[in-house]
Amino acid sequence: MNGKIRILLRDALRGNLRAIARLITMIEEEEQDGELFKFITKNAGHAHIVGFTGAPGVGKSSLISSVASKLCEKGERVGIIAIDPSSPITGGAFLGDRIRMADISLNPNIFIRSMGSRGASGGIARCTGEVALLMDALGFNTVLIETVGAGQSDIEIMKWVHTVVVMLSPGGGDDIQFAKAGLMEIANIFVINKCDLPGAEITYRFLKMELEEAGSDIPVIRTSVTKGNEGVPQLVETLTLYSKELKARKEIEILKYMILSNKTKQEILRRMEEKIDSWILEKGKSLLLSGLSPDECAELWRKENGI
Amino acid sequence: MNGKIRILLRDALRGNLRAIARLITMIEEEEQDGELFKFITKNAGHAHIVGFTGAPGVGKSSLISSVASKLCEKGERVGIIAIDPSSPITGGAFLGDRIRMADISLNPNIFIRSMGSRGASGGIARCTGEVALLMDALGFNTVLIETVGAGQSDIEIMKWVHTVVVMLSPGGGDDIQFAKAGLMEIANIFVINKCDLPGAEITYRFLKMELEEAGSDIPVIRTSVTKGNEGVPQLVETLTLYSKELKARKEIEILKYMILSNKTKQEILRRMEEKIDSWILEKGKSLLLSGLSPDECAELWRKENGI
Repeated sequence: MNGKIRILLRDALRGNLRAIARLITMIEEEEQDGELFKFITKNAGHAHIVGFTGAPGVGKSSLISSVASKLCEKGERVGIIAIDPSSPITGGAFLGDRIRMADISLNPNIFIRSMGSRGASGGIARCTGEVALLMDALGFNTVLIETVGAGQSDIEIMKWVHTVVVMLSPGGGDDIQFAKAGLMEIANIFVINKCDLPGAEITYRFLKMELEEAGSDIPVIRTSVTKGNEGVPQLVETLTLYSKELKARKEIEILKYMILSNKTKQEILRRMEEKIDSWILEKGKSLLLSGLSPDECAELWRKENGI
Repeated sequence: MNGKIRILLRDALRGNLRAIARLITMIEEEEQDGELFKFITKNAGHAHIVGFTGAPGVGKSSLISSVASKLCEKGERVGIIAIDPSSPITGGAFLGDRIRMADISLNPNIFIRSMGSRGASGGIARCTGEVALLMDALGFNTVLIETVGAGQSDIEIMKWVHTVVVMLSPGGGDDIQFAKAGLMEIANIFVINKCDLPGAEITYRFLKMELEEAGSDIPVIRTSVTKGNEGVPQLVETLTLYSKELKARKEIEILKYMILSNKTKQEILRRMEEKIDSWILEKGKSLLLSGLSPDECAELWRKENGI
């Protein structure tokens, strides 16, 4: 292992935030990460990775902050990854949210990382799983991922978590519609946040009815961060219970190998690309010039390489 | 060739807009395009592909419309691809622009296609070249591509055109800064649009000075669509001259083979993916379980497959 990575890992394991941040950036930028992934392969496979998704304004950041604090009180170390562009971490939310997040960001057992959406959507989704796995390997017990759940990439991200929390807030059918469009299928827990607001009871009953009709027994938890963290202990308890069940069923490790398998595939494809480029430069062009289509060239490549 | 593609190609060659649109969608969605690319490989290699780029509001749609009309008057058939999200084709521009575009869209020798930016940025860039090549194969003499030139994907798109027109409008240094940031290097023609507005002369002199300092002889053309299409004939003349020079230097064909080579690479990678997936399913997981990192697994795959 080269000196730089070794020092960064040593510092990160001691809780140095800058070292953790640097390692995450290395994953995002796919920078000499062979050794880093050696470390992850050896050490990850213990953390519960939880995705929180819901429409903007549903209160994801606040609830995640409360859940993180509660988990810390129980002696856990918690990593948070925010992908939502309206998240207070990445900017765009109310001052109150910012303060709340700033509050937990002082907790030495909580590490917050916001991830930009500059790259390709597939790229963010891929990265998110790998970053969660790094946090796992560095000793974080739970990783909470915040995403707005609007686009394809958000649903993609949910493939790389153990547990999906779909959040709704009172206020009519919009949220229910939202929940039904693709997110219903991936939810493991429903949360009706801001349950102190009028209409919460209706949303709750409506969702319960929908779930019953679908023959689903997914729990629905009512929370309110402003009203003394109502429901948050119940949510944390449910998450802890799920974590135990996932461990018993070896599902914590299964996700780890899914993420590492995907990384392996990317590594193989990266190596292939160079080979393909030089083959095209050498042979492909004259084949195309002779009238062969890209499809036929690709078939020829396959045969030549016995694959 | 299967019946469906054959009928679509026959109809498209007869100028049926719906058939052309359907074929473009097939390229975008990578739908059984082997035969379609066979047709493209055989028939493309004649059209001049021109990219127009510049900040929102610089007047790209209007100028492209004028250029397209002018080329049609000369007996050409013109394809237009709009990627700019603020384009009147994709929505978001002023009513005047919309009307102007609607105007040319009635011309049977002009085909307009707007391409969504829903996919990955690399994906749009790749597609754009392929769609332009399809238009070429269908007998369009010139393909005009409109892009906002803001992000990496816009610069990427410019790799897949023969000629890049960078558009500025009067109004101080912002545009010049914009031109200098990455677009200066790729420009083949500069256009100062809205040249009837105050400040146009200053922008013109400033740009000329900048180009002179850089030892560049890239032409700078002043245009105004509202002022009786001032400068448009000169721009069209320059484009026609460039087209002749490109043909003489075989560069029209070179770009064709670059786009087809890239398609070939994508086809090879697609085929590889299936192979890699089953290898990982069979062997990768146990290797990862035994403690090998993704990097080491990828190396092993490479050795096993003699690549």
